[in-house]
Amino acid sequence: MQCSDKKSNDAVNYLEAVFRRIYPQDSLFRDKAVHHLEQLTMPPWALGDLMDLAVDLAGMTRSLEPPVARKKIVVMTGDHGVTAEGVSVYPSEVTVQMVHNFIAGGAGINALARQAGAEVVVVDMGTKVDLSELAAAGKIIGKRIGSGTGNIAHGPAMTRTHAVMAVEAGIEVAEELASEVDVFGTGDMGIGNTTPSTAIAAVMTGQDAAVLTGRGTGLDDEQLQHKIKIVEKAIAINRPDPKNALDVLAKVGGFEIGGIAGLIIGAAAHRKPVVVDGLISTAGALIANGLEPFVRDYIIYAHRSVEPAHRFMHERLGKKPLLDLNMRLGEGTGAALAMNLIEAAVAVLTEVATFADAGVTGSPVKA
Amino acid sequence: MQCSDKKSNDAVNYLEAVFRRIYPQDSLFRDKAVHHLEQLTMPPWALGDLMDLAVDLAGMTRSLEPPVARKKIVVMTGDHGVTAEGVSVYPSEVTVQMVHNFIAGGAGINALARQAGAEVVVVDMGTKVDLSELAAAGKIIGKRIGSGTGNIAHGPAMTRTHAVMAVEAGIEVAEELASEVDVFGTGDMGIGNTTPSTAIAAVMTGQDAAVLTGRGTGLDDEQLQHKIKIVEKAIAINRPDPKNALDVLAKVGGFEIGGIAGLIIGAAAHRKPVVVDGLISTAGALIANGLEPFVRDYIIYAHRSVEPAHRFMHERLGKKPLLDLNMRLGEGTGAALAMNLIEAAVAVLTEVATFADAGVTGSPVKA
Repeated sequence: MQCSDKKSNDAVNYLEAVFRRIYPQDSLFRDKAVHHLEQLTMPPWALGDLMDLAVDLAGMTRSLEPPVARKKIVVMTGDHGVTAEGVSVYPSEVTVQMVHNFIAGGAGINALARQAGAEVVVVDMGTKVDLSELAAAGKIIGKRIGSGTGNIAHGPAMTRTHAVMAVEAGIEVAEELASEVDVFGTGDMGIGNTTPSTAIAAVMTGQDAAVLTGRGTGLDDEQLQHKIKIVEKAIAINRPDPKNALDVLAKVGGFEIGGIAGLIIGAAAHRKPVVVDGLISTAGALIANGLEPFVRDYIIYAHRSVEPAHRFMHERLGKKPLLDLNMRLGEGTGAALAMNLIEAAVAVLTEVATFADAGVTGSPVKA
Repeated sequence: MQCSDKKSNDAVNYLEAVFRRIYPQDSLFRDKAVHHLEQLTMPPWALGDLMDLAVDLAGMTRSLEPPVARKKIVVMTGDHGVTAEGVSVYPSEVTVQMVHNFIAGGAGINALARQAGAEVVVVDMGTKVDLSELAAAGKIIGKRIGSGTGNIAHGPAMTRTHAVMAVEAGIEVAEELASEVDVFGTGDMGIGNTTPSTAIAAVMTGQDAAVLTGRGTGLDDEQLQHKIKIVEKAIAINRPDPKNALDVLAKVGGFEIGGIAGLIIGAAAHRKPVVVDGLISTAGALIANGLEPFVRDYIIYAHRSVEPAHRFMHERLGKKPLLDLNMRLGEGTGAALAMNLIEAAVAVLTEVATFADAGVTGSPVKA
């Protein structure tokens, strides 16, 4: 363990160094964007949330022409020991089957990313089956922490060292891609991963598992009650410290959830917007936010899924998601849809004429 | 008036002939789409509303590959006599100023339509200033019914003949464009038009004006109370018959609202999806729905605006809008944003692999 501990300490130092690069949004560019948007040929703030988003993008990117053309959705994959408890209707094998589907371009995220003009990048954070060959062939990015997590119903998901490594790996992915990406999106694939995500939500929002737990990929009533018990058991046995995000990740998290947290942190360090997808991605955002709260200034929440925990997580993080379409797929599918709204927000900021330019009467008359 | 009445009767016959061409969605193609979507490599119906939308598109277009590439947003413009009552903070002149802005490509709808790959088509349904020269030059489509409506606080907006002509004109626009359009979007421009739209909503939902009336382009509290009184007065004086959509349109409507109703009817007659934008467009949908209820099968409601009436109108029409982004611009801006979701729904229907094709385990295991 000594070797691991050294690695862990180095990594924590690495994390701290990255955190020091994360600043809040630039208020000057936010103000400039607000000033410009107020002069557009439309009633004040008539495009609502789209204009708020435009201001955020200006503040993130320090630009009144936020670059958003190059979009990548990073799908973090990993397996979960807790599947042994029967918390999912699908077997763990499906995780890797879906990785092959991603590579072949046949999954939901592939279709929606294509529509949004985004590329899909798959990262192996720790599937049960070793995917090193796919990584060596350049078809995915290999960042394996292990062959699936431990069963959180009986002990921690991973060691603290592995938790640090998972976050670090996510940051590395962001670093490696940053020069070719304007907007990051997060995605996930990991059979069983709504269970650790709900456990993270319970620990970090303080809500009961019974309120938060959802049907995941399709549990019936009885299976749902069982899943609630497993989430409660995982928290009771592991006693994660809500004030310590690494502790929460290690005890009731997942490799891909740590990778997502790292990707968010890395995006923020590069002042790039990162579109956070569904329940699992938002669990990653809770971890990232716990590690370095300034990351919140770079996150755009894509959508609210049907998983009950999701709403509480967004409330805890203090932001409203853009879409609410009764989705529950993950993979980054919500992030892909939201990419269109990001492009739209930039189009409003950069393409709409002002009252002065267009010769439109801008000063409202007294009604 | 005899000449007008003849015209009116011919037009009603024309309307009846168009209504006879409108059939409900094809249930066979809906069923085929459901069957296909259930086999995709994802948990059952995991893309929620997007999958419902895909089924609707299949049912509308009688195709499992619904064509959606060619998109046009038709912005219907008209002026309103009720602006004399001080119901808007902008003067009527802004309607035509914005038409020039649309032509120059500088308005909100231009930016958002470009992002969505849609074209903007402007129709003069009856602005205060005659725009025949722009129509003759091919920059807009000319379908003028008159130089703005009458003041609904004192009498009807238009004659019954003009109401029929407005709807007919909208149908004609759909007919003229149908061969080059896969998906229609509706839009509007007309200073003062939230007042007739709210009056239509009050008549056709049965809700009180006080509950429905919003701030439009930016009324203060006092101005809002005044607008409520004007809506109430318009209904009290004109006594529109809620069971007679033409009567409602004639008494408290607007030329562009009639044009929008016609466009929706024309789109339905051509079995083309029509994306209905905000408050004014939805008032047009209420009129279209009142004239021929089968049109509902071809309407996609884009978004819920901040205008209070909008929610009640969607409830009356029995459909949930796709987006809710605190917008209140009109012009078709919500419809443009929704076009991306329509493309996404088709991408799900046509591009995602089935369990069998991808070799993914599709039968859920007993959890």
